[in-house]
Amino acid sequence: MVPENLAAFSRQVLAAAGADEPTAEAATRAMMHGSLHGVDSHGIRLLDHYATVLESGRVNPAPEVTLKRTARATTLLDADDGHGALAGYRAMEEAATLAQDCGLAAVGIVNSSHFGPAGAYALAAAEADMIGLVTCNADSFVRLHEGAERFHGTNPIACAVPVAGQKPWLLDMASSAVPFNRVQLYKSLGQDLPPDVASDERGEDTANPEAVAMLAPLGGAFGFKGAGLAGLAEILSAVVTGMRLSFELLPMGGPDLSTPRKLGAFALAMCPDAFVSRDDFQAGMEHYLEALRASPARASGQVMAPGDREWAEAEQRRRNGIPIDPTTLENFERLAERYRLSVP
Amino acid sequence: MVPENLAAFSRQVLAAAGADEPTAEAATRAMMHGSLHGVDSHGIRLLDHYATVLESGRVNPAPEVTLKRTARATTLLDADDGHGALAGYRAMEEAATLAQDCGLAAVGIVNSSHFGPAGAYALAAAEADMIGLVTCNADSFVRLHEGAERFHGTNPIACAVPVAGQKPWLLDMASSAVPFNRVQLYKSLGQDLPPDVASDERGEDTANPEAVAMLAPLGGAFGFKGAGLAGLAEILSAVVTGMRLSFELLPMGGPDLSTPRKLGAFALAMCPDAFVSRDDFQAGMEHYLEALRASPARASGQVMAPGDREWAEAEQRRRNGIPIDPTTLENFERLAERYRLSVP
Repeated sequence: MVPENLAAFSRQVLAAAGADEPTAEAATRAMMHGSLHGVDSHGIRLLDHYATVLESGRVNPAPEVTLKRTARATTLLDADDGHGALAGYRAMEEAATLAQDCGLAAVGIVNSSHFGPAGAYALAAAEADMIGLVTCNADSFVRLHEGAERFHGTNPIACAVPVAGQKPWLLDMASSAVPFNRVQLYKSLGQDLPPDVASDERGEDTANPEAVAMLAPLGGAFGFKGAGLAGLAEILSAVVTGMRLSFELLPMGGPDLSTPRKLGAFALAMCPDAFVSRDDFQAGMEHYLEALRASPARASGQVMAPGDREWAEAEQRRRNGIPIDPTTLENFERLAERYRLSVP
Repeated sequence: MVPENLAAFSRQVLAAAGADEPTAEAATRAMMHGSLHGVDSHGIRLLDHYATVLESGRVNPAPEVTLKRTARATTLLDADDGHGALAGYRAMEEAATLAQDCGLAAVGIVNSSHFGPAGAYALAAAEADMIGLVTCNADSFVRLHEGAERFHGTNPIACAVPVAGQKPWLLDMASSAVPFNRVQLYKSLGQDLPPDVASDERGEDTANPEAVAMLAPLGGAFGFKGAGLAGLAEILSAVVTGMRLSFELLPMGGPDLSTPRKLGAFALAMCPDAFVSRDDFQAGMEHYLEALRASPARASGQVMAPGDREWAEAEQRRRNGIPIDPTTLENFERLAERYRLSVP
């Protein structure tokens, strides 16, 4: 589908589901980030879910988002149980503004909902010429190192760094060893999983996608690293904000779709010229990326900077349109009928 | 060896090699952090190397460390080519002081040398009741994702979070898939490496420790994550500070031991009660750790919080003494002879 038409449909659906204009805009922007850059799990696929939870009471369709400065370089954002994308963009905007004055700044988010693609908010920082770092927690789905139950969510860490005259450096990674989507893909293809990425009900690693009951933390034999990164995300987004831990969250998919989920999140912005001149920073970043992209690849491999794959995908999708999977297309048809709209 | 005697010997050796008192104290404190907590690669083993580079001109034995506030919440620390541990502790001390006022703060380190155990400085933040995050770069030794040359260093990321009435939560991780020490250990034992942790000269993964020419980034098939984390460390410690990139650093081991290495590093501190009350933060952290430690382990596994293994090791070593490997013991004897000291 043509990106602009898809975005317009998204705004119409969300508005029809009760969302105020800032909510419809932010949620659409975040989903389009996912759908354009190939992060389809956090793309327009979520539109149906978002429309449902806006109508069912879980997500406040017209929240009064408030900001409270807690120290010179820290602000608390209360999302008023509104959409996570609205909170994410507002938090990063505020962090970037504060960081202009303070060198760096952080915003803690409370009373939020499903965050969507963390990279979208980190990218927003880089677009404002700031280094951005964002993290959140999510429904328990990843075991601890040597653990045997779902404990942390896939707790992502996303960072973006502005690059003069180029697309930003952009890292958006889950702290799990593999995305659950990938497990589902292997299942539908009837293929074995790579080693040490997912586990069965006893926490033992399995290559059989049918047996997967939880994901492994990033790092294989050194899974304490992935579990530690998930913990860092959990502490920054849920502990320092007093919000729900991953294993306490109401499941994203229901059955309770009317109680707010009380999700936390965390956004940090830092001036790239906090320590050296803007020119020196820009020259340094250019020099680093030039060396990185020129670094030799192994046979049949390709060396890329974080984000390069995503920019290439976005260019291709802008040209050829955004692919919509059959389930999402069915949902679009249902939504169009419910709200008397046309599928783009 | 008895920790106190070892620390006293270290101070004597460093002083004899020309170090001023703050340098000898900081370097000893950092090495003892490594040797107590089982991080022997960054422990007292380094004493001989540090004495050498203090004498040979690479490291300034009596540096004039200067601090320059660059914004409300950011300060630049110029280490004057002094010891990396002096810079690391001073930077974190300054970040913690600034964060008391600002909620969070960062210090960029320039003109420094070998950093030692990153966890030592993160821990210093937690001991000052702050959340600490520290990163640095190092000699190129890790390939990029699908890369075929040493590009980043093992670029560590270390974080610590204070826990009331308990030891802090402490994560100190290299962004490589495996430490090089571990490769050496497998080599000396004649054993195969775990899958996807190290590569031969063409960047192809190998289980043969004899063939290892570089380490893989953390993440196996998802090595873009480890390479991205290494890149984040590289950007925060070397790009925003204008210091040398990993592949531009003079090798730690020489032959040039007289030219300063111009290493950068980065320290961040955040008030744990930046967003909620101190009581709520403490209760939240306690609740999180209690749940984590009670989470079931898989067969023959053990679930631990980041740092738990290190605290247990430190207790055991305080009781039974710190093991010293034969090479380090030989170096001690040589140092004792050179400086007319007694090996403890």
